[in-house]
Amino acid sequence: MNKPLQNDLYIRALLRQPTERTPIWVMRQAGRYLPEYRQLRGEAGSFMNLCTNPDLACEVTLQPLRRFRLDAAILFSDILTIPDAMGLGLYFAEGEGPRFEHVISSADDVEKLQRPDPEQSLAYVMDAVVRIRKELNGEVPLIGFSGSPWTLATYMVEGGSSKAFAKIKNMIYAEPKTAHRLLDKLADSVTDYLNAQIESGAQAVQIFDTWGGALAADVFREFSLQYLEKIVAGLNRSHDGQRIPVVLFCKGCNLQLENLADTGCDALGVDWTISLADARARVGERVALQGNLDPAVMLTNPDIVACQVQNTLASFGMGEGHVFNLGHGITPDVDPQNMTVLVESVREYSPAWHQDKDRPPGPV
Amino acid sequence: MNKPLQNDLYIRALLRQPTERTPIWVMRQAGRYLPEYRQLRGEAGSFMNLCTNPDLACEVTLQPLRRFRLDAAILFSDILTIPDAMGLGLYFAEGEGPRFEHVISSADDVEKLQRPDPEQSLAYVMDAVVRIRKELNGEVPLIGFSGSPWTLATYMVEGGSSKAFAKIKNMIYAEPKTAHRLLDKLADSVTDYLNAQIESGAQAVQIFDTWGGALAADVFREFSLQYLEKIVAGLNRSHDGQRIPVVLFCKGCNLQLENLADTGCDALGVDWTISLADARARVGERVALQGNLDPAVMLTNPDIVACQVQNTLASFGMGEGHVFNLGHGITPDVDPQNMTVLVESVREYSPAWHQDKDRPPGPV
Repeated sequence: MNKPLQNDLYIRALLRQPTERTPIWVMRQAGRYLPEYRQLRGEAGSFMNLCTNPDLACEVTLQPLRRFRLDAAILFSDILTIPDAMGLGLYFAEGEGPRFEHVISSADDVEKLQRPDPEQSLAYVMDAVVRIRKELNGEVPLIGFSGSPWTLATYMVEGGSSKAFAKIKNMIYAEPKTAHRLLDKLADSVTDYLNAQIESGAQAVQIFDTWGGALAADVFREFSLQYLEKIVAGLNRSHDGQRIPVVLFCKGCNLQLENLADTGCDALGVDWTISLADARARVGERVALQGNLDPAVMLTNPDIVACQVQNTLASFGMGEGHVFNLGHGITPDVDPQNMTVLVESVREYSPAWHQDKDRPPGPV
Repeated sequence: MNKPLQNDLYIRALLRQPTERTPIWVMRQAGRYLPEYRQLRGEAGSFMNLCTNPDLACEVTLQPLRRFRLDAAILFSDILTIPDAMGLGLYFAEGEGPRFEHVISSADDVEKLQRPDPEQSLAYVMDAVVRIRKELNGEVPLIGFSGSPWTLATYMVEGGSSKAFAKIKNMIYAEPKTAHRLLDKLADSVTDYLNAQIESGAQAVQIFDTWGGALAADVFREFSLQYLEKIVAGLNRSHDGQRIPVVLFCKGCNLQLENLADTGCDALGVDWTISLADARARVGERVALQGNLDPAVMLTNPDIVACQVQNTLASFGMGEGHVFNLGHGITPDVDPQNMTVLVESVREYSPAWHQDKDRPPGPV
């Protein structure tokens, strides 16, 4: 049995419950800016070897927690595990980002796609979740995650990263039925996958729609948003008597915040191009917000990091429902010292923004 | 003397005056999707040879007008001519985009930058404008343009294209005075440059803030918007008895539309991630709108292009103040046949959205 949570600030903030300070975690907190990550990555031989080996995935997940007083761990994995489990053959070409051996280019290709059983073809992820929960020993919560249907579909149809999204957009505009069939299968698969992560021990889940911002507003609603809604509706929102918060992070989609807040999720990740004050005014009391310091600030110096932390806290303002994060992943060239400053500045300056700052941390 | 304009639909739409149909031009309409452009580009040896030779720049400018019934020509040039004229040495590495031989990395570098006299170091641009106006012979208006101070500064400090904008953002956050000095010099230089284009015959001007969307909302206002305001205030808004409309196109800045509309410009270019209906609701009667079909639609087929043209016109709705365009530049892999369909569809379907559809085209 897993121990009860000692630090549940992150969970409480996502549920907009009182906290004595603002919790913080950082997207890609386990990553290349850490020398110990680069060493393990070198020894593992490939990024996928890190992801598919539960011991290594657990070790990488915990690395940033040993250095920084973070309020959550996030499963070390990739957003493209589902298409890989569907048989598309994920690999990482040196310096090129993710690629697939097989791409989806026809209605027939889509029909043939099997909804993966996460306990079978994604067992390595579930093993990692179990292992990480055990190692965390209740210290902080573990976040599970998945890519969104639209974001997964872009890679599956383009064969890798893209700038113009010519093929997947051609499918959406010229063969919308095929695109909907693909996205619907992905929504079901993401639901299964996240529910299996929750069953294995993930205490919150986040869905990354990295490329939602490439779509026209009405196209986003039809081809991304409605599948996010379907997933949120299908997730098991409690486990072991605990509420499991669901976070949506759609980069470049700040014009859609109101619609995203209506999906039934608990919180929205926001990138840095909107102020938290504006974002909060848009979503009102419906959801918590997670973000949103410009990741480029982490490339400056400690004084500026500390100052910008204060600006970000002030932009959200008084009250509950804020999880501090960057507006996108931390970049490989960041000095880990700036990460220490970031985390400690949030600890130092955030209590003033909470009514309940004298309440000690404790279980939900 | 230049002849009076025969087709002034574009000018009237920018000034929100009645038109019998919606005018159209397309960003990068003179470009690589045209075989005749690729041939001339090959013969010229380099992109900069095309830009700096007024005869070739004129020829390239006119190429799309011979194929398509467009309502405006746009000067063929590059957004980075000003930093080149400042001595930074613009060149295009094969397949890599623009680069500078010298970069700006200190307050001292910024101090040394000279405000170029456009009639001297940018005379090739003015010669091209004069030449194009003569060749156009009053058929359609000629658009002049420049990059925005912020967008120019990104290339000057990064040395070329960037994804993270680490150096220029470090300057903004850590050395804001240096950044402001650079941006202020650029604002003055852009003002001089656009006024010289107007003096030479440009009948409207557009400022491209290609990278404004990379900035946090408050940073955008301080480091991009205020310099756009300064330029707009300094432009000569009439020439030869004609009003010269000013258009701002800030990609990825749809959250800033209200602020951009308050700069004093006549029109805003909008990318495809916001519906024109939403954009129009935000800016009200303050400015005209230009856009905003997803450029990826041009990679589909004629039926879909025609359908999406109708959707875009319907999104703007009834009334004046819309210039049709893509939401960003046309891409090199577009079939020119789809461009014909785009232009003709706007001609076919737009009159229904104008009250004054029986008024014949004529001078402002």
